[in-house]
Amino acid sequence: MEIYLDNSATTKPCAEAVEACVNAMTKTYGNPSSLHDVGFAAEKCIKEAKKQIAAALKCDVSEIVFTSGATESNNLALVGAAQAKIRRGKTIVISAVEHPSVLETVHALAQQGFTVKTVQPQSDGTFSAQSFADAVDSDTTLVSCMMVNNETGLLLPIAEIAAAVKAKKPDVLVHTDAVQAFLKLPIRFPALSVDLMSISGHKVYAPKGIGALIVKKGVRLIPQITGGGQQNGVRSGTEPVPMIAAFGAAVAAQRTKLSARIAHYEALSKRLRDAFSQNEDVSFRSGDACVPYIVSLSVFGVRSETMLHFLEQKGIYVSSGSACAKGAHSHVMDALGVDRMTADETLRISFSPETTEEMIDTLVSAILEGEQTLAKQRVRG
Amino acid sequence: MEIYLDNSATTKPCAEAVEACVNAMTKTYGNPSSLHDVGFAAEKCIKEAKKQIAAALKCDVSEIVFTSGATESNNLALVGAAQAKIRRGKTIVISAVEHPSVLETVHALAQQGFTVKTVQPQSDGTFSAQSFADAVDSDTTLVSCMMVNNETGLLLPIAEIAAAVKAKKPDVLVHTDAVQAFLKLPIRFPALSVDLMSISGHKVYAPKGIGALIVKKGVRLIPQITGGGQQNGVRSGTEPVPMIAAFGAAVAAQRTKLSARIAHYEALSKRLRDAFSQNEDVSFRSGDACVPYIVSLSVFGVRSETMLHFLEQKGIYVSSGSACAKGAHSHVMDALGVDRMTADETLRISFSPETTEEMIDTLVSAILEGEQTLAKQRVRG
Repeated sequence: MEIYLDNSATTKPCAEAVEACVNAMTKTYGNPSSLHDVGFAAEKCIKEAKKQIAAALKCDVSEIVFTSGATESNNLALVGAAQAKIRRGKTIVISAVEHPSVLETVHALAQQGFTVKTVQPQSDGTFSAQSFADAVDSDTTLVSCMMVNNETGLLLPIAEIAAAVKAKKPDVLVHTDAVQAFLKLPIRFPALSVDLMSISGHKVYAPKGIGALIVKKGVRLIPQITGGGQQNGVRSGTEPVPMIAAFGAAVAAQRTKLSARIAHYEALSKRLRDAFSQNEDVSFRSGDACVPYIVSLSVFGVRSETMLHFLEQKGIYVSSGSACAKGAHSHVMDALGVDRMTADETLRISFSPETTEEMIDTLVSAILEGEQTLAKQRVRG
Repeated sequence: MEIYLDNSATTKPCAEAVEACVNAMTKTYGNPSSLHDVGFAAEKCIKEAKKQIAAALKCDVSEIVFTSGATESNNLALVGAAQAKIRRGKTIVISAVEHPSVLETVHALAQQGFTVKTVQPQSDGTFSAQSFADAVDSDTTLVSCMMVNNETGLLLPIAEIAAAVKAKKPDVLVHTDAVQAFLKLPIRFPALSVDLMSISGHKVYAPKGIGALIVKKGVRLIPQITGGGQQNGVRSGTEPVPMIAAFGAAVAAQRTKLSARIAHYEALSKRLRDAFSQNEDVSFRSGDACVPYIVSLSVFGVRSETMLHFLEQKGIYVSSGSACAKGAHSHVMDALGVDRMTADETLRISFSPETTEEMIDTLVSAILEGEQTLAKQRVRG
């Protein structure tokens, strides 16, 4: 049996998404820009998906811009907003635990003359909204802060951050990378006071290759991909109708099941933690400040990659940190003050609705077996 | 019966592409960056698709960069190359008949201080290689010229253009938008002397949402989408495995059938032209300089949008110019010296391997009927 516990890296598309994708490939295959019925049918497909996503976020359909994924969404949000606001200022504020698609993009902006300020967590590893407001100065035009950290599951107080930032300087744009939160936590876009929100399809049981940027009405971005003027010119290129249809179908299939899923994830998380409560060699990164569907744990003396392959032999798939930073050292663990050796022993376990308690029990046994087999002598620091 | 003759706008994915897409969604659903087997299986899927595409173009697998489509490919090629070469110069040369994804992108570069020179066709509507070389000066770093024009089917002599440009200034990068040529004409990437080539999936029976930029070994581009460093850092973002697999499968299914298809298209094109050879109210844009699978024709006195909807009622789907420029006036027709009234009467008929002679006959009858029903009095200019 395959026990896939790496759902924060990517998910297996749900049946509804696969079906919608196939229908769009075989039936509504037209170019949405075509003036004839075959084109209109494809355009209708896009409109339907927009309605499904808007219903989940309580945003307006006109606020949805489809992208090739959250990496592009983050790039468009950051570069598009920074460029649009360039006459007002050139300082961008981000958290210290952002995804590489934010970090690398603001680094590129820094090379073009922008100033990037990084907000560090407090000593307990959490972020205060005030620290973002404090970082905002007269030159600041943009604040970007993720909603849930992809490596640890840390929940960042984005609503409070946006409110604090806007209280200090109302014209600052606030962007949030909501990839690890969308459809896992209740999100009402209008209630957050953010201007820009990135979401991804493949983290929510749609295929890889589709995402969206939610752009609050009235917020102007400089387009980053130009051409035929599709999507009101914000993002040119023929819309990927099969991917969009799949994204909409995946969202529609899940959005009403949120409360039950959260309860399910909480039970799984508790079961995993409880299993190691008497084991001082297994420590948990995640805590009360974290979401229940991502658990970050370290096994003393066993490098995560070693444990990952040990578990893999038993058909259990987990992650050693983020799949997006293959082999690289984690800036998130650094920011959270985790020593590098412990960071190197960290596994990320991430759940799906299909994850069962039995799977958690199998994982626990396997980790214990791995610990006994693989642990090297090391002195507790 | 549906007679879809708008294959230059988009194509219906072939069975092989649909199957590969579904397999990747349901079986190899992992994140290619994940370190475990589920991730490796997805990575293998990408490698297989790269082999299939490389075999079709005779390029190296390492030269393929996947994008969300040709619009992104063109943006990456132009902006990425212009930025990489900025210390050498800031002039870009393009043809007058490029796709909006090239035109709008060089316009954006012009706003950033680049100089854009546009090469016009000769009086017969064709382009000479020498005119591109003539446009190159000491400040020129990049030449971009499409291989086949999407509105008229005009074939541009890209191999000769690249050779002439490089003879004049060897370090100029040459990019070609090969979207309307790939898998329809024999293309050997190494034989063309171009450095960058854009191709699209959805024009070759793969789904919308996938494309590639072929980047000659040693050519450096500044990445336009940054993040996790996928695809050697040239294009970050989790690779869209289902789309990539579908693209590879579509290419593999077609690449050996090229000669037979060309002969098929030539027969269809001839049949269409012959049917109107005695009708002076129907004129053809396309001629000897054009590919056989795109036919551009004008019906005197009938606006193309009117004719398009007339044909649509009979289940025949064609285009009024390019689907990418919904309703806008055609810069291509302007460049080719076609008067605006005739341009407004232009239909684009584009074939697929499934197009039959009977379909052409049905189209011809319908156009004749439309002409009789719809033609307005207008004086021949």
